[in-house]
Amino acid sequence: MYKGLIERLALKNGSRILLAVLDGLGDIPIGELGGRTPLEAASTPNLDRLATGGALGMHVPIARGVTPGSGPAHLGLFGYDPVEYEVGRGVLSALGIGFPLRHGDLAARINFCTVDGAGVVTDRRAGRISTEKCRELVSLLGGIGIQGVEVHVMPVKEHRACVVFRNGDLSDDINDTDPGLVGERPVPVNGSGRSSEIVREFQEKSAGILAGHHPANFLLMRGFALHREFPTMEERFRLNAAAVALYPMYRGVASLVGMNVMACEPETLEGQVHAVELALRKGHDLVFLHHKPADSSGEDGNPAAKVSAIEDFDRVLPRFLELKPDVVAVTGDHSTPCPMKLHSWHPVPVLIHGGPQRTGYSSCFSEKQALSGSLGTFLSTDLMPLMMAAGGKLSKFGA
Amino acid sequence: MYKGLIERLALKNGSRILLAVLDGLGDIPIGELGGRTPLEAASTPNLDRLATGGALGMHVPIARGVTPGSGPAHLGLFGYDPVEYEVGRGVLSALGIGFPLRHGDLAARINFCTVDGAGVVTDRRAGRISTEKCRELVSLLGGIGIQGVEVHVMPVKEHRACVVFRNGDLSDDINDTDPGLVGERPVPVNGSGRSSEIVREFQEKSAGILAGHHPANFLLMRGFALHREFPTMEERFRLNAAAVALYPMYRGVASLVGMNVMACEPETLEGQVHAVELALRKGHDLVFLHHKPADSSGEDGNPAAKVSAIEDFDRVLPRFLELKPDVVAVTGDHSTPCPMKLHSWHPVPVLIHGGPQRTGYSSCFSEKQALSGSLGTFLSTDLMPLMMAAGGKLSKFGA
Repeated sequence: MYKGLIERLALKNGSRILLAVLDGLGDIPIGELGGRTPLEAASTPNLDRLATGGALGMHVPIARGVTPGSGPAHLGLFGYDPVEYEVGRGVLSALGIGFPLRHGDLAARINFCTVDGAGVVTDRRAGRISTEKCRELVSLLGGIGIQGVEVHVMPVKEHRACVVFRNGDLSDDINDTDPGLVGERPVPVNGSGRSSEIVREFQEKSAGILAGHHPANFLLMRGFALHREFPTMEERFRLNAAAVALYPMYRGVASLVGMNVMACEPETLEGQVHAVELALRKGHDLVFLHHKPADSSGEDGNPAAKVSAIEDFDRVLPRFLELKPDVVAVTGDHSTPCPMKLHSWHPVPVLIHGGPQRTGYSSCFSEKQALSGSLGTFLSTDLMPLMMAAGGKLSKFGA
Repeated sequence: MYKGLIERLALKNGSRILLAVLDGLGDIPIGELGGRTPLEAASTPNLDRLATGGALGMHVPIARGVTPGSGPAHLGLFGYDPVEYEVGRGVLSALGIGFPLRHGDLAARINFCTVDGAGVVTDRRAGRISTEKCRELVSLLGGIGIQGVEVHVMPVKEHRACVVFRNGDLSDDINDTDPGLVGERPVPVNGSGRSSEIVREFQEKSAGILAGHHPANFLLMRGFALHREFPTMEERFRLNAAAVALYPMYRGVASLVGMNVMACEPETLEGQVHAVELALRKGHDLVFLHHKPADSSGEDGNPAAKVSAIEDFDRVLPRFLELKPDVVAVTGDHSTPCPMKLHSWHPVPVLIHGGPQRTGYSSCFSEKQALSGSLGTFLSTDLMPLMMAAGGKLSKFGA
């Protein structure tokens, strides 16, 4: 992608794009599905109809062979080069719970953990304490004061929390204190800079507070990252974008690029239909819709559940189509093959419907047909220009 | 493409390449052609024979989703990165009429227009005055003198003309005076630099001259661009290239990269056969042949005419093949889908015949077969190295 080219060509018009991301959609052939992928095994009459009248392709999330985390994978789909616009885990975590990060904030993930008398980690998740317990511990930590810096500690879920340090000239060149496995001591904070001192002081004070709260009698930190503001999708692509996502992480990434994060009531696919409808009615010209279950079932190694997750989406798809978006794209942020129970580097099937397309290359939405689809195989960052082109939102380059 | 790599590897040898560009060749499936594209619907026995004995692929003119103008699209085919070697509209216009631009010349497009008594534009094309009338007005403007700068005004066609300012340290940071729609006043030339002053003075003096020439009683300018010299194809690729094109625009782009622009007598496909023959006899080792009608019929939204334009080319193709070029490539500069009546971003089918090719992947020249052809899908700038390789004109990289 030429830097700045799409920005130069971006046009504002009345067309409306719906980008539906089935998280972790891509997969590999699975024996118990008769050598088919979950997408191939699923009964998806509505997606197949879109595939027939549209165009398929494959996107490569980051680079060949590179497995993305959810944050960078989504940034790619939003047209942001995921390496140039790298986001640290700490920042993603804070964004994911809706914490209003500011430019220069230093964020890190926290795991409450169990240490034994010798200070050795015996459980990195403190027996997966309840979210309730997590909130209680976090409120105790809220009292930690460190000279010249604001400290914000927020609960996430179960044993997970996050911390944000604000004010001052902070650096994110700070090592993880999480040793990554049990039987080891937490890693001391190295380095002599002011930021290291602050984190060390936080580590010590928190240890004192937590000491009597077995099993959550210590905390581990990882993914230190400074928050920097990104140019918004409006600034870059003249797109007034909205996000309809139920999980904090995806809401966080969406807000990072200036999307309007919609409330979903109830927090179900049904609630998402209403939220997409409202977003379109409010004049948003790009709506990002996030559907999580495909990824979760992939990570659980459960092909049948992944098939169901895809079928659930397909059943609701007509509700979205009734809203008459001009362009509909359906894809995943990355592949989560059930046999791997992990994200993977495999290219991800994409479907674009609407606008002038080379149709007639596909009759259903599947990995196989996506590979020979008329869109070809492209980098995830090319999806945004392809959707914009389909919606008439890119002017011609040169005369 | 690695910058400078092809230049390092380029070899001079006796092989001869014919690059035939069917302007706007690519299309999308069209109902009235039974869901086929014009290329698929056309009867092209000669192209199909080349496809069978050669290799097909698809090229992406600029980037995914990006629709090119003709200038940048051709530069890509000539192996010039169209974004790095961006050419402004004014320069393309001047080149298109054969004006001998020099490095540093400032060029702009002119539209004669109609303004009412209040100075509001009522017709941006002055009722499409005749080319004859355009010439007459241009000769009146020829007398405009501006201190320290040469002013050249040239007719183009109907209401279109162009202007070149020469001498002095000119800048092209000058706004369009064309408001782009009727009912508005011409946009004043902003900026305080010397170039803005020159253009302002030209605007004022031309207004005085044109005042009594209703409907062409004013002029609008747009696409201000400085001409810079490009390295020639000989310098970059050791190719002594010639161009056989009937339309000024393509002759202009060809001259920009140092091609020898051949005369065509008569100005028909028949005349082009003679010109290609002469070019090859003169020792040119790359001949660019431009066939315009496919694009024009696409812009007219006329699939039947586009089919005919392709068939016309196919009928004459054996005449070119009799000249025994070692490598023949046939492609378009971009797609011009009839349903859109516009250039588009869709990848363009390519055929390369001659040299060692992976044959056996195709039996006819079509978008469908090009997508699964043995050349794959590549950026337009990769066509030049692929043709050179087929002609034995690229040495090995490394030992």
